[in-house]
Amino acid sequence: MMSNVVYTVYRGTFIHLTRLPESPSRSKPQLVRNSGTIWVSTEDGRIKGLDWSAGDEESFGALMARNGWVDINNTQKSGAGDVKVQVVTADEARNEFFFPGFIDTHIHAPQYPNAGLFGSTTLLDWLEAYTFPVESGFGATNTTPTNDPKDTPPSALRIYDQVIARTLSHGTTCASYFATVHVPATNALAALSHKRGQRAFIGRVCMDNPSFCPEYYRDATAEESLTSTQSVIEYIHTLDPKGHLIKPIITPRFVPTCTKPALESLGTLAASYSPPLHIQTHISENLNEVALVEELFPGDTYAGVYDKYNLLTKRTILAHAVHLSSSERALIRARDAKISHCPASNSALGSGIAPVRTFLDEGLTVGLGTDVSGGYSPSILEAARQACLASRLLGHTVSFSEEKSENCEVGREKLSVEESLYLATRGGAAVIDMADELGGFEEGMIFDAQLIQLGSVAPIGGLLEGTGDVLVDGPVGNVDLFGTETWEEKIQKWFWSGDDRNVKAVWVAGRLVHHRA
Amino acid sequence: MMSNVVYTVYRGTFIHLTRLPESPSRSKPQLVRNSGTIWVSTEDGRIKGLDWSAGDEESFGALMARNGWVDINNTQKSGAGDVKVQVVTADEARNEFFFPGFIDTHIHAPQYPNAGLFGSTTLLDWLEAYTFPVESGFGATNTTPTNDPKDTPPSALRIYDQVIARTLSHGTTCASYFATVHVPATNALAALSHKRGQRAFIGRVCMDNPSFCPEYYRDATAEESLTSTQSVIEYIHTLDPKGHLIKPIITPRFVPTCTKPALESLGTLAASYSPPLHIQTHISENLNEVALVEELFPGDTYAGVYDKYNLLTKRTILAHAVHLSSSERALIRARDAKISHCPASNSALGSGIAPVRTFLDEGLTVGLGTDVSGGYSPSILEAARQACLASRLLGHTVSFSEEKSENCEVGREKLSVEESLYLATRGGAAVIDMADELGGFEEGMIFDAQLIQLGSVAPIGGLLEGTGDVLVDGPVGNVDLFGTETWEEKIQKWFWSGDDRNVKAVWVAGRLVHHRA
Repeated sequence: MMSNVVYTVYRGTFIHLTRLPESPSRSKPQLVRNSGTIWVSTEDGRIKGLDWSAGDEESFGALMARNGWVDINNTQKSGAGDVKVQVVTADEARNEFFFPGFIDTHIHAPQYPNAGLFGSTTLLDWLEAYTFPVESGFGATNTTPTNDPKDTPPSALRIYDQVIARTLSHGTTCASYFATVHVPATNALAALSHKRGQRAFIGRVCMDNPSFCPEYYRDATAEESLTSTQSVIEYIHTLDPKGHLIKPIITPRFVPTCTKPALESLGTLAASYSPPLHIQTHISENLNEVALVEELFPGDTYAGVYDKYNLLTKRTILAHAVHLSSSERALIRARDAKISHCPASNSALGSGIAPVRTFLDEGLTVGLGTDVSGGYSPSILEAARQACLASRLLGHTVSFSEEKSENCEVGREKLSVEESLYLATRGGAAVIDMADELGGFEEGMIFDAQLIQLGSVAPIGGLLEGTGDVLVDGPVGNVDLFGTETWEEKIQKWFWSGDDRNVKAVWVAGRLVHHRA
Repeated sequence: MMSNVVYTVYRGTFIHLTRLPESPSRSKPQLVRNSGTIWVSTEDGRIKGLDWSAGDEESFGALMARNGWVDINNTQKSGAGDVKVQVVTADEARNEFFFPGFIDTHIHAPQYPNAGLFGSTTLLDWLEAYTFPVESGFGATNTTPTNDPKDTPPSALRIYDQVIARTLSHGTTCASYFATVHVPATNALAALSHKRGQRAFIGRVCMDNPSFCPEYYRDATAEESLTSTQSVIEYIHTLDPKGHLIKPIITPRFVPTCTKPALESLGTLAASYSPPLHIQTHISENLNEVALVEELFPGDTYAGVYDKYNLLTKRTILAHAVHLSSSERALIRARDAKISHCPASNSALGSGIAPVRTFLDEGLTVGLGTDVSGGYSPSILEAARQACLASRLLGHTVSFSEEKSENCEVGREKLSVEESLYLATRGGAAVIDMADELGGFEEGMIFDAQLIQLGSVAPIGGLLEGTGDVLVDGPVGNVDLFGTETWEEKIQKWFWSGDDRNVKAVWVAGRLVHHRA
């Protein structure tokens, strides 16, 4: 696309979270707001430079001239040189700003048609009633399936395409997907993500334990868990050889669904690559599940089982972690494994409230996951809201009152808006081991970003006449501004009232992958 | 409007909740879906008849002919008579259906500009930091104010108009508003609700206790609490003499902000009308607040204080009720006072989780409140979602494990989607003492309703090209249908993913008060 354009030049307001020092640390992230210009290479999608002084027309013009940049859409106002650039402007009057793309560190793509369908189930009966049936429908229709994505049922392609489109529309620039056990459909998910331009980790789900997987939906043997996973890795490495956008991720579903030989071979497989492959799984989501693992591995802890099979690495994403013991947290920290906090799901399935403050205080790395469809929403902004809300109820829980350390200040367990947005961006980047490349606006980082539009101050009586998303003047979506807000308060209003209507455009590695008219 | 039109005839799918038998009862509400026709008198907005057999064109035509109805927009297809009717059709292909309007039993209209602004505060510091400052800005600019709404600051009018427009756009057909201490602005809120056609209870806030109210924002004396309240009642009784749409409601803010003489005179004032006036206040929202009340009224309970001053009546709305004792619940039940459950607020301010199942089991009447701006959202659908989510975490709380009765089934505390929607409609109607008139589609009831549009089955790749709310085909807002859903599942998807984009039109007493193009 536009190979003759050297840079995309982004102008306007940029807001991101400060980086935190290496953990453990009690310091808290701050929102930082800069106005100016960032330029991104169209070749590799990385930020090549920033100029916080180039905000107004005059200094921006000087920047253009100094660099010899020609705006391909406005040659009159451009510099005199011959370096072609494209300019993208965030409109201050409409309260537009650039924000890092959201990172969804845990999402089950095939479960998307079930989003919002969970009744009053909890984890284990929910899997039986809702999850396994929908996932089993992603098998090849071909009786002698190849590994070709074309062997995927049309209904599965449709679901995968929709979930990618939906998450992009909510500002998710990167997702770590659980697919199903099926190789063709998993490859199709990789191909669709690649085509739409969403950064993604694609995991073929491994589940071979006949005691805990239904007859109609499982790997026949541990060997099949391994070889099918290898097929997917091979496909993805052909699709995107350098892993610029799409990477494979080893995905044992969770301890009870995997035999020991399967767990062992998957750990070995991950380690056989250089650098080792990413790994994702579930841990300590629900008390009955924890009890089940204790029964299956007497004397071991849940985290200990993963560690035993070399599945607890610095590139491992552990989803949920609601009921970890302190010794398990210490082990996870020692291995530098990462945690995907999925508050919407944990509330919806009544799993409990993960003690995120404890994680952060102890130096664990945490990001957010939607966990569709345990979570009802594909929006990381919704996950961030639920992270805040759940943390405010944590002080009322039995587990908190049992574990509360003596030096704990009242209310310290609460996550602020800034902290939740940190988890949604930089936290997620750290969870996928890309803390130096994603999550903020810094020179050298990859430009995965969203343009947020809050709209202008609400006019009197503007709403009843509203006929769609984007009024020429007035609010966008549900964010009402009255003109009295500080910029920090505008962010808080976006956080609590915003939705996909406020996501005007999304870029991954500098490529425009979603926009609203 | 259209005084020559005798009926509005609504055709299509109607969904509501079944009525429950008189409490206490362990029976649960069910969603009921009917296809057919309802006709509503344009004179009084009441449902004059229903015909569940008049679904298809033929039987509908027969119904029109039998009644001699002429469709003013389509005289060709109408009956031969001369009774003019207007036909409103819910489009099955776009998954449209009529649903009862939502009832918000607790909302602070002047706090709307603060929606989403609460930081990590809890009730008492939140009042000081956020609430009193914004409410104090609703005072008359005139130095010798009259009771005229025109004495309201323009900024206050703008906020009130916006909050009414916003709540209507989310399907709220009736709201019980807390205003401020100011008579002109409170009267303006009444006038604006009346003009926009939203059913409303309007409460001038009474707070005269100098120990707990700031110098800059309070009633000077208990006498002022009384006389200013009387002024508002008088204004509203002039505005809407029969109270068809707007009613006054006696509003002592909560125990700590009111002196004993004020509480006493307000209780007497409410009882002096026939029928007695409605009353609204707060109760047991936060543990520090409960402790404060115990300190102020040693030996009394929170509910007991209201009862002592004749403020605990069958027309009293008690907001929050998170930390009531069983004896207080028994007293509230004995007085038949009502509870407004405000889960979004209770989570946001970390107040705790109200034990709604216990309320229902004990026969208390419960509805939902947004509690803007303790609650961050003006949407009752969001409140209903949070009611479900919070109830799923209740089992993890200290209060639950302390109070859990022995015969309690595991998970019984969880509220279902059906129950939350019941609270949002029929529950709310019962809370405002209008259970026989609002909340369902029954002959004789008032037609306060919304037309929900979910959209049609999601096409492949429809989203990235989506340029606004209403695509000709495909999803509306965030509700994705894949064609495999039962109608009950469609409701669940609307519940968990829906927003104001799915509210296509809203009627109050048969008057169209909001629509999306």
